[in-house]
Amino acid sequence: MSSTVKDMLATYPADLGDIDQGKLTRCIEECIACAQACTACADACLSEGMVSDLTKCIRTTMDCADICTATAAVLSRHTGYDANITRAILKACVTACKACGDECASHADMHEHCRVCAEACRSCEQACNELLAALG
Amino acid sequence: MSSTVKDMLATYPADLGDIDQGKLTRCIEECIACAQACTACADACLSEGMVSDLTKCIRTTMDCADICTATAAVLSRHTGYDANITRAILKACVTACKACGDECASHADMHEHCRVCAEACRSCEQACNELLAALG
Amino acid sequence: MSSTVKDMLATYPADLGDIDQGKLTRCIEECIACAQACTACADACLSEGMVSDLTKCIRTTMDCADICTATAAVLSRHTGYDANITRAILKACVTACKACGDECASHADMHEHCRVCAEACRSCEQACNELLAALG
Amino acid sequence: MSSTVKDMLATYPADLGDIDQGKLTRCIEECIACAQACTACADACLSEGMVSDLTKCIRTTMDCADICTATAAVLSRHTGYDANITRAILKACVTACKACGDECASHADMHEHCRVCAEACRSCEQACNELLAALG
Repeated sequence: MSSTVKDMLATYPADLGDIDQGKLTRCIEECIACAQACTACADACLSEGMVSDLTKCIRTTMDCADICTATAAVLSRHTGYDANITRAILKACVTACKACGDECASHADMHEHCRVCAEACRSCEQACNELLAALG
Repeated sequence: MSSTVKDMLATYPADLGDIDQGKLTRCIEECIACAQACTACADACLSEGMVSDLTKCIRTTMDCADICTATAAVLSRHTGYDANITRAILKACVTACKACGDECASHADMHEHCRVCAEACRSCEQACNELLAALG
Repeated sequence: MSSTVKDMLATYPADLGDIDQGKLTRCIEECIACAQACTACADACLSEGMVSDLTKCIRTTMDCADICTATAAVLSRHTGYDANITRAILKACVTACKACGDECASHADMHEHCRVCAEACRSCEQACNELLAALG
Repeated sequence: MSSTVKDMLATYPADLGDIDQGKLTRCIEECIACAQACTACADACLSEGMVSDLTKCIRTTMDCADICTATAAVLSRHTGYDANITRAILKACVTACKACGDECASHADMHEHCRVCAEACRSCEQACNELLAALG
């Protein structure tokens, strides 16, 4: 999986500018991994007996999945690059991953899927912040 | 179409807080209309003889479509509301719609689909800004 | 809203072939309306006191939203048309809308949002079937 | 990346039935890898000097990305499982990956990104077919 993101970046036919390709690759990988983990966590929460205690968690994971999916798509495009759009969606992704990581972490002792999902959110949040810092 | 967004909001079973429901309804409608217009405009640009002059336009409309789709989904959820996520994705949507509206407007004299798409972007940008202002 | 779908189709710069433009327009509109209704219904179910009775409904509405969104995007593109892809995603959309309409209809007496969503699913299912029939 | 899909499946709190978890994990991973590769390939095609020769390729990769993303989401949910929806979206994904793999393969000698993307499509098509066969 990770090699495909890297291979697609390596075969881009035009100039990528001075972007940090390692940080970009990692950020795309984290966004798509986080989106999948959040979709799966929302569903796992639905199958818990105490689903009524997890409604905020389900909602937040769904938002985070949608925003991570959009972020991965924007970051996968380089033609006609607009730094303003990249920064804005990265900031939204950081906000969603922070909120979702906090929410899932609060259920991590009770639910293993929330623990795994919280880790994915933390990792994605960090990758987005590092890419944002590298963009200047 | 517009009545379904309004009807779903009207039948939400819990407290919606003091959000401006008219502005929320309009913003969701504009986001999904803009996403569709942008997807269609990217494709229409592909069928122009001068597609090589429209590559930045195609890229920007694809970003705008992805971000508008995510924004519409986030705005369609009210359970466990997190104002930080709503504000962050609305800001990203404003940025994308501004960039896409500008780009499409620059081709509007040549391409009717860019003119229609630019209007959809302007309208969505305005609806997002009005909802942001109403959120405080 | 509906006028944007129609306007984008009307300004497509190349030959649309012999597709029924009225049926295509309606199908795109129904898909995006159904996707939004399903996203909103999943969230409304989460806020019901009896959410544990609605977990299958929430799951099915999320699937239906994802499939309707993909279908609307595919139908909004005309360049390099491939009837096999169009037919396959329309069939998947019919299947999802039928399942989701049935599930939501079974809760319609208890929950108004399920009633509205079931209508959106039925209407989308019908529009997809009519477009499929027109494609031959 | 691959471990997150597997870990989320392993922590699902309810019965997964007799589904082949290895094939399911691989299929989800292939769908999200293919979606990213297709989004990146559409963008790489836009930056080729001969973009006018690649318009069908760009369109098909965009369709394939949208359908793969929807398929990954549906496959990531297990609550209230409906085999009809799973089969229908898998069949649509096979159709899209076959068409996109063929189209990209026809440009693989000229464009490295099309070669990488064609491989991602072939691999995803195979994983979807294997999961379909396992579902019975």
